[in-house]
Amino acid sequence: MTQELSTQENVAETRSGQPRAALASVTPFRVMSVMQRAHELECAGNQIVHLEVGEPDFSTAQPIVEAGKAALDAGLTQYTAATGLAALRGKISERYRLQHGLEISPERILITPGASGGLLLLAHLLVGQGDGILITDPAYPCVRNFIKLRDASPQLVPVVRAASYQPSVEDLMAQRTDATRGVWLASPNNPTGTILDRSQLSALSAWTRREGLHLLVDEIYHGLHFVDDLPSVLEVDDSAFVVNSFSKYFGMTGWRLGWIVVPEAFIDTARTLAQNMYISASSIAQHAALAAFEPETQVILDSRREEFRRRRDYMVEELTALGFVLPQEIAGAFYVYADCSKFSDDSEAFCKRMLEEYGVAMTPGTDFGDASARTMLRLSFTTSMAQLQIAIARLRAALA
Amino acid sequence: MTQELSTQENVAETRSGQPRAALASVTPFRVMSVMQRAHELECAGNQIVHLEVGEPDFSTAQPIVEAGKAALDAGLTQYTAATGLAALRGKISERYRLQHGLEISPERILITPGASGGLLLLAHLLVGQGDGILITDPAYPCVRNFIKLRDASPQLVPVVRAASYQPSVEDLMAQRTDATRGVWLASPNNPTGTILDRSQLSALSAWTRREGLHLLVDEIYHGLHFVDDLPSVLEVDDSAFVVNSFSKYFGMTGWRLGWIVVPEAFIDTARTLAQNMYISASSIAQHAALAAFEPETQVILDSRREEFRRRRDYMVEELTALGFVLPQEIAGAFYVYADCSKFSDDSEAFCKRMLEEYGVAMTPGTDFGDASARTMLRLSFTTSMAQLQIAIARLRAALA
Repeated sequence: MTQELSTQENVAETRSGQPRAALASVTPFRVMSVMQRAHELECAGNQIVHLEVGEPDFSTAQPIVEAGKAALDAGLTQYTAATGLAALRGKISERYRLQHGLEISPERILITPGASGGLLLLAHLLVGQGDGILITDPAYPCVRNFIKLRDASPQLVPVVRAASYQPSVEDLMAQRTDATRGVWLASPNNPTGTILDRSQLSALSAWTRREGLHLLVDEIYHGLHFVDDLPSVLEVDDSAFVVNSFSKYFGMTGWRLGWIVVPEAFIDTARTLAQNMYISASSIAQHAALAAFEPETQVILDSRREEFRRRRDYMVEELTALGFVLPQEIAGAFYVYADCSKFSDDSEAFCKRMLEEYGVAMTPGTDFGDASARTMLRLSFTTSMAQLQIAIARLRAALA
Repeated sequence: MTQELSTQENVAETRSGQPRAALASVTPFRVMSVMQRAHELECAGNQIVHLEVGEPDFSTAQPIVEAGKAALDAGLTQYTAATGLAALRGKISERYRLQHGLEISPERILITPGASGGLLLLAHLLVGQGDGILITDPAYPCVRNFIKLRDASPQLVPVVRAASYQPSVEDLMAQRTDATRGVWLASPNNPTGTILDRSQLSALSAWTRREGLHLLVDEIYHGLHFVDDLPSVLEVDDSAFVVNSFSKYFGMTGWRLGWIVVPEAFIDTARTLAQNMYISASSIAQHAALAAFEPETQVILDSRREEFRRRRDYMVEELTALGFVLPQEIAGAFYVYADCSKFSDDSEAFCKRMLEEYGVAMTPGTDFGDASARTMLRLSFTTSMAQLQIAIARLRAALA
């Protein structure tokens, strides 16, 4: 992000109709133009298979919907406390106890307007201007942009298939500079679907502690995992920062609800930021989310996870057979991060051709990073098995 | 906001359990501790009259609630476009045409997660590190804090009762520096309830244009005004920035929904920021808000405004009789910004005594500014006439 704007240039900008030059590096997502083009093709009468969307195709589970309606009937339409409903924070705390054997005080849990709101709050809490933050390449594109919006530098750590697209301490050390203040990771990761196991988390935690760097882990795909043991970073590091979401496993995208966990000493400042930045998350969404922890809801959500597992298994088998190179294990989330170098050395052109000529919408790897992004693409299995079968048949025809 | 953190200090901060020192200037609202203490007193069996809360006491109007429930029944729980539902942007555009005779393209309107989300987006769009932004003293406290969060400087422009607590061009010129990039105002203003008329807006617009400064006006209390003519800044300045909200006139606080209007040339960058910062506003809230523009809803909302007008008239008469000095005209919003210097030269102590000894919760002026804040306080008329009468009786007893 360029910092050297002269006074005169900056004065002129906002009245000359030019947004701040510093914002030029905050890029729109390529997936948006894919979606836009797919929509145009559909309007022209084409049948498009959507493998570009990062949103579960299930609408919100009925018990959560009913709880939302009950909240509306009860007139629960006022602001809540900035940190969220105590009852909801209690449910989340209980989930950490049941799933991870952790005692996380509800005080350390702040309800946020989506994981986006949580990440934005943590960016303000943790990142000052000029700071460097180590993130993986590839990673969820907003992460890069949140760091840039803080007038700080994302320090990209290339990760490779052989290491399940997750970094080692050595990888981080290689990119670390004097400006480095923290490490932001994701497990499961978007776009790769790969996770950090307990020994990896321990090593990363130990190194960041030793170096005085903060450690933030995006755990928004927790619950949507296909392995028996998916540790939270909090199991090995009580002073790590976590962002989580009701959008993915809990299927509440459009409600805009998430949470963060912060260490004890950060609670007051995080609360002040929440008061300022968003007053409170949606009261209706919070009351509805209380129902997400009911056993009947869990049955629904777990059966959806099993549907995602079936789709993953199908996609992995078929895409591998077609010649794509996939991660060794997609342990969570609903993405296949595929190497298409057998077919193209330009994933943007490849995605464009598959969309225009075969009606299969996918996201080029360039949304997620720089290193080897040009031969990578992301396919979401957030559409029905029937649609996935059509997609595979079309890709097979295209690549024959 | 202090910028001179040494590298070593900054490294140590996030692992030593200390939030960034730069955040120390982002202050919690005093109203929060008033609310907290009022709650404690209530738990101990006291009857507290709440004049501290900046939230309408009406729950959301039934047609909006029903539309929200219908959206849930229809499964409309997915993300919307980052800029919001086209239908909702169309309704807002139509409102500008009907109320202000303005043609504002729906493309220029972005739906945001509350006015908070809108202001936060505009802060990122318009404010770079080191910039100065002219704001009034007093003003809504978040405004100051949003500017500080951008590592920029709020440049306080003291405004006085004789000028209806709104600034003249000369007032702005007196505080303007080489670092100044823009002017952020509010009409109606929180805490003063005063407005900028058309000639004031024209003069401010002409000056900011001439000086190359952007002009942003918070119009979130539009609709909740008690004068016949309340102009939008867009009537005199097509390249101004506006933030508005569904929380106040539309009574949708807990839903978290607002909007911003940006000039044509800023649409793309604003959309990119929206994609990154919050993906979309709540889909349920957006679908519900469509019903806010229906004639049957407008009847309800307008009758609520008339109730606020009755409360205002009552409070103005009674508080003046008690010896408080009020603005010459409270033209909108639901606050009385009262000078209590006849009774105290320390409004924090005064508010504390009124709460502890008389059970009347009010917000000290120090939440809103520095200049003369120590003899000012804010009383909200967001509680019933019966409660207001109890408050006045208690204040009368206290001040006898």
